[in-house]
Amino acid sequence: MPVNLPAPDAATLFPISGVRIGVVEAGVRKQGRKDVSVFLLDPGSSVGGVFTTNRFCAAPVQICQQNLAQGADIRAMVINTGNANAGTGADGLARARATCDALSARLAVSPEQVLPFSTGVIMEPLPSDRIIAALDRAIAAARADAWLDAAEGIMTTDTVPKAFGQQVQIGGKTVSVTGISKGAGMIRPNMATMLGFIATDACVHPDLMRPLALALAQQSFNCVTVDGDTSTNDSLVVVATHQAGHAQIDSLSSPEGQALFGALLAVAQQLAHAIVRDGEGATKFITVQVDGGANVLECSKVAYAIAHSPLVKTAFFASDPNLGRILAAVGYAGIEDLDQGGIELFLDDVHVATKGGRNTAYQEADGQRVMRQSEITVRVDLGRGSASHTVWTCDLSHDYVTINADYRS
Amino acid sequence: MPVNLPAPDAATLFPISGVRIGVVEAGVRKQGRKDVSVFLLDPGSSVGGVFTTNRFCAAPVQICQQNLAQGADIRAMVINTGNANAGTGADGLARARATCDALSARLAVSPEQVLPFSTGVIMEPLPSDRIIAALDRAIAAARADAWLDAAEGIMTTDTVPKAFGQQVQIGGKTVSVTGISKGAGMIRPNMATMLGFIATDACVHPDLMRPLALALAQQSFNCVTVDGDTSTNDSLVVVATHQAGHAQIDSLSSPEGQALFGALLAVAQQLAHAIVRDGEGATKFITVQVDGGANVLECSKVAYAIAHSPLVKTAFFASDPNLGRILAAVGYAGIEDLDQGGIELFLDDVHVATKGGRNTAYQEADGQRVMRQSEITVRVDLGRGSASHTVWTCDLSHDYVTINADYRS
Repeated sequence: MPVNLPAPDAATLFPISGVRIGVVEAGVRKQGRKDVSVFLLDPGSSVGGVFTTNRFCAAPVQICQQNLAQGADIRAMVINTGNANAGTGADGLARARATCDALSARLAVSPEQVLPFSTGVIMEPLPSDRIIAALDRAIAAARADAWLDAAEGIMTTDTVPKAFGQQVQIGGKTVSVTGISKGAGMIRPNMATMLGFIATDACVHPDLMRPLALALAQQSFNCVTVDGDTSTNDSLVVVATHQAGHAQIDSLSSPEGQALFGALLAVAQQLAHAIVRDGEGATKFITVQVDGGANVLECSKVAYAIAHSPLVKTAFFASDPNLGRILAAVGYAGIEDLDQGGIELFLDDVHVATKGGRNTAYQEADGQRVMRQSEITVRVDLGRGSASHTVWTCDLSHDYVTINADYRS
Repeated sequence: MPVNLPAPDAATLFPISGVRIGVVEAGVRKQGRKDVSVFLLDPGSSVGGVFTTNRFCAAPVQICQQNLAQGADIRAMVINTGNANAGTGADGLARARATCDALSARLAVSPEQVLPFSTGVIMEPLPSDRIIAALDRAIAAARADAWLDAAEGIMTTDTVPKAFGQQVQIGGKTVSVTGISKGAGMIRPNMATMLGFIATDACVHPDLMRPLALALAQQSFNCVTVDGDTSTNDSLVVVATHQAGHAQIDSLSSPEGQALFGALLAVAQQLAHAIVRDGEGATKFITVQVDGGANVLECSKVAYAIAHSPLVKTAFFASDPNLGRILAAVGYAGIEDLDQGGIELFLDDVHVATKGGRNTAYQEADGQRVMRQSEITVRVDLGRGSASHTVWTCDLSHDYVTINADYRS
């Protein structure tokens, strides 16, 4: 059961003019599961992407990076679940290329205009023949209002589809933003997440798409973690179809640029939070906020040390205010000149520790009350400066072990 | 159940001339459990220690470091389980000092000649009054053959006591080495482990004790991890009582120094491995060996990335050869210029991946066979140089979650 994550609200999944989506069952994952999604983009769309920093990045990630770096006019995306096509060497690249070739031939575009994505088990050969055999059906099925189908079609161990939309007024026109994501384990995105796709009909200068995607990732997907495992396939793609009719946005710092970024960020953060809320075995949604750092990097180190500690995460699962474990994580986070005498620790509104020791006014009953909640904020003040960083994570439960011990069976 | 870890062999727990140990129940932990141990050292003993790098290091760790740095002639150690006296601020330091004061007064030595150690729950006030009230009984009970009692008296979530001994001939004399350790969770020692105490009757120049302890830690406790959580209380102490009667060892590189180091290392590695074998919830003992690195540091990064990955550890628990998870961990370990095309992966004698992709000769049945074993070696060749590093770890099971969700209750 995901943590406070209702099913997507279909009314907010705005069709994006210029984007059609076809989702079919190709037999890649398991019987009865739609597992191949094709996104068709009108000519004139701009695309930006950010991808995993994992050096074992998957074959499709390598092809996406090449095609986007070449500035290819992207016209289609093909996504399969059930197989990550990672750790597959030269053969994996060939199979991903064969899929792009087949789709581009059907659309009468060049292979470089297709972006491939895969997610699922690592180090198994991609059944590209089955994906290719399903392309005609996917193209024929493509329609503008299939965002929820696509959210379902990219799931792996996710228990619910993840899709959000938002509208904003820009230059007197209504601009729509709709996005989907997937991911529940192997989640510690580094530049992006497992898979995230966000489209808007806004008119944005093509050169802004890559910095836009980066800035979105930094404030959303790059701030969540489930288990600290950075995936081989993390990809976030942002598409702008230029069909909303307003004047082109040439700067993200203009009022129009900021309005669009706000709408995109709202969708990206909801998608990122949804991944944590549906984290494998999650029973709690934890916000880890670190203030008072000398710089953002050290705040981030402390936040991730807390968010990755198996001892902290099991204490949250047990609703056990064994909060010394949080101090221990602060201590080993890697700030070499940290003075423990300057540390303050809060659990929601409860002041747990002061000057590095237990707050004498702290009552275990207060810590217990907060620990029982399904949404908890841990706040650490390092007392070293004014920098902050926030990370979102979940607890570590028996179900995490069960899910990952049984994933392939 | 620990992994292939029999009960200590009492016949190998050699009394160390110059060391007497008293172990009593002081009511710090739970009823019926011996929880305070006092080590009494004859005059003329040399002591070296290494301690946690956690910036939230416990009060007793701070006092140990001060006393050893001052070159105090150490005459006693007092160890309690059930309470870590960490995250306790100035009050925690005062309580640790009160314990040292009380013990030193009873022994007619100065407080600086006492080393205190604590292990257990973090951020709770140390019941120093109960420890002090037990000191007379502990001193009266002290005897040379109480190593097994002490190994039991320092346990927390350990399921078995950990104690090993070894003898070696030096200068025509029989030199004995006996050591104990504890630890099962919050195990990712950094300079030392939870608690390890090793004593020998060898005659060693006092200036060699600190480098000796460091070198031992680097090749034993610093190469094991259970859950990646570096403790606030990690301490390794090595005592040499100078009573074996051979000529003093003035260099670790002399034949006598090497003989002694070999015996000490054999004990230290067995103690360190014992912590992994008794790791919380462990069902398997995993050796992660990384070869072919450009330097030891990058080999260590890769080895720890594999050893800390919850996905890798749950796959081991399930005996599931989902070995792409290992490649993913190699990829995110932090080697920025890593070429995945150069990576080889072996599971014991099975060649799983070559040139970054699945080895075509690899059969899943072979991977399955190795994964079912209780002792497994993962070997990664990075293809970048000749450096190597080895780390020992265990799997991640349901029992890990159970133990840590219930630890305080």
